[in-house]
Amino acid sequence: MTHSLWRVAVVGLGAMGGPMAACLLRAGHAVCAADIDPAARERFAAAGGSVCGSAAQAAEQAEVLLVMVHTADQVDAVLFGDGGAAAALGPQAVVWLASTVTPAYARALASRLAAMGLALADGPVSGGVDRAAAGALTVMAGGAQQALDRAESVMQACAERIYRVGEAGAGSTFKMINQLLTGAHIALASEAIALGARAGVDPSMLVEVIRQSAGTSLQFERRAPRMVAGDHTPHTTVQTFLKDLGIALDAARALDFPLPLASAANQVFTMAAALGHARDSDTQVISVYQSFGAPIGLVQ
Amino acid sequence: MTHSLWRVAVVGLGAMGGPMAACLLRAGHAVCAADIDPAARERFAAAGGSVCGSAAQAAEQAEVLLVMVHTADQVDAVLFGDGGAAAALGPQAVVWLASTVTPAYARALASRLAAMGLALADGPVSGGVDRAAAGALTVMAGGAQQALDRAESVMQACAERIYRVGEAGAGSTFKMINQLLTGAHIALASEAIALGARAGVDPSMLVEVIRQSAGTSLQFERRAPRMVAGDHTPHTTVQTFLKDLGIALDAARALDFPLPLASAANQVFTMAAALGHARDSDTQVISVYQSFGAPIGLVQ
Repeated sequence: MTHSLWRVAVVGLGAMGGPMAACLLRAGHAVCAADIDPAARERFAAAGGSVCGSAAQAAEQAEVLLVMVHTADQVDAVLFGDGGAAAALGPQAVVWLASTVTPAYARALASRLAAMGLALADGPVSGGVDRAAAGALTVMAGGAQQALDRAESVMQACAERIYRVGEAGAGSTFKMINQLLTGAHIALASEAIALGARAGVDPSMLVEVIRQSAGTSLQFERRAPRMVAGDHTPHTTVQTFLKDLGIALDAARALDFPLPLASAANQVFTMAAALGHARDSDTQVISVYQSFGAPIGLVQ
Repeated sequence: MTHSLWRVAVVGLGAMGGPMAACLLRAGHAVCAADIDPAARERFAAAGGSVCGSAAQAAEQAEVLLVMVHTADQVDAVLFGDGGAAAALGPQAVVWLASTVTPAYARALASRLAAMGLALADGPVSGGVDRAAAGALTVMAGGAQQALDRAESVMQACAERIYRVGEAGAGSTFKMINQLLTGAHIALASEAIALGARAGVDPSMLVEVIRQSAGTSLQFERRAPRMVAGDHTPHTTVQTFLKDLGIALDAARALDFPLPLASAANQVFTMAAALGHARDSDTQVISVYQSFGAPIGLVQ
């Protein structure tokens, strides 16, 4: 079962979906892909992929549909909108939703698909663009066992690790927690480096020492050196973390559950957006603290 | 210079100072130690160390004095109080202050010692009790080069890594930043696990997956499994992080510098203290979220 090759439709050929679709091609799946962006379609065609004119055409008789778009609204449009994919899928097909959505949305989507005889693999991914290109993502997969079995070989083509974490909704809950921590760690890295710089120590040396000390985090190791160097090459953006922290805050509010640190992190990303950095690299949270007088990257 | 053996006085034989003094013995230094706690003195004597009746007696003609006590008030008492050590030290001796104090205190202490012909190595440590026992701490050392040279072989006996980070005050600034991050990461780990549990996923599986994902931190790896297992064996306590986050918040206030995430973390540790856990393990921050309904460790 796990090494089956399927007819796979992919909708969403962006920074993550594009390399994931390429991994599926390399693994030998029959892939047909769609994207509203002509440039994304051309990149995939140049990599040897088949491109379809709509999500519905890509999904025609597909056994697995990978959806990798930004928002739940886009997922709805891809599946159920004009030229939508859900109605075109083959019988008992599985929709692997790899986008980051609220757990409540994932649960509702599973019900809606079930009513059409389709199954959901609620499988958001972690790892970023580099790991997507290497087929080395982590998948946090929720859903019925049969659905996850069907999607297994497709996930394996994209992922180094696949965790089965429960029913539909559980995958999105795991991703939500991961994003809460990732975003808060980035905001904390900037707060800590900025205080050190403001207090008069060399920020580059500070980053080197903290990386070897009890205060380090994976995001500190990845982002802090770039913050200090002023390297804001976009990987993930400020608005992505506003969206993802917003998912956690919305879920917590619905549960009457307090999130003091995530709330503070969300405010810092909001400040970065207010300074004009919504579509820039998440490392631009440091600009919030620069605006408050932290001398990072200001000395020439 | 770096392999010199000195007459070393140690004041403070607690959870960190005791194993550090034992490392100095093993390295061949002539160590005389003092502590107000008879049990701590007996432990050191049983390990073959010489115990003195007061800080002043321990410091008699010492070339290096290691001070490892909890608070700046205790440092003042050890050095300048009744039976204080500073006046008893040999000429041009170096005081290695390994306690976590404010950068402002470290700078003022350097001046006060300089007026007595003594030098300060502002050298707080990171790594905890296990690394202290193994002589594998990290030292963040600030001070004049001559003072750091004098203290080098003493630091080497206790440490795997010694960073020279600037003048007196810089070591304490680095430690302050490290503690800000460490404390905030512990508070964040508890917030994230608790939200996941409240949202219905298995907290043990959540910890396993996050440890392999983008949201991990060194403290998450160390503390999160213990939080979920209900293992609150004390290593560092809630009140230690209240003190250390307080140092960062005080320093930031003096600089008119905002710390939104560290402030929130400080409030969460304050809640843990309000629940009666001030002297318990820092992993008890999870109890704050348990009191808000996160089902962790409640299922038998």
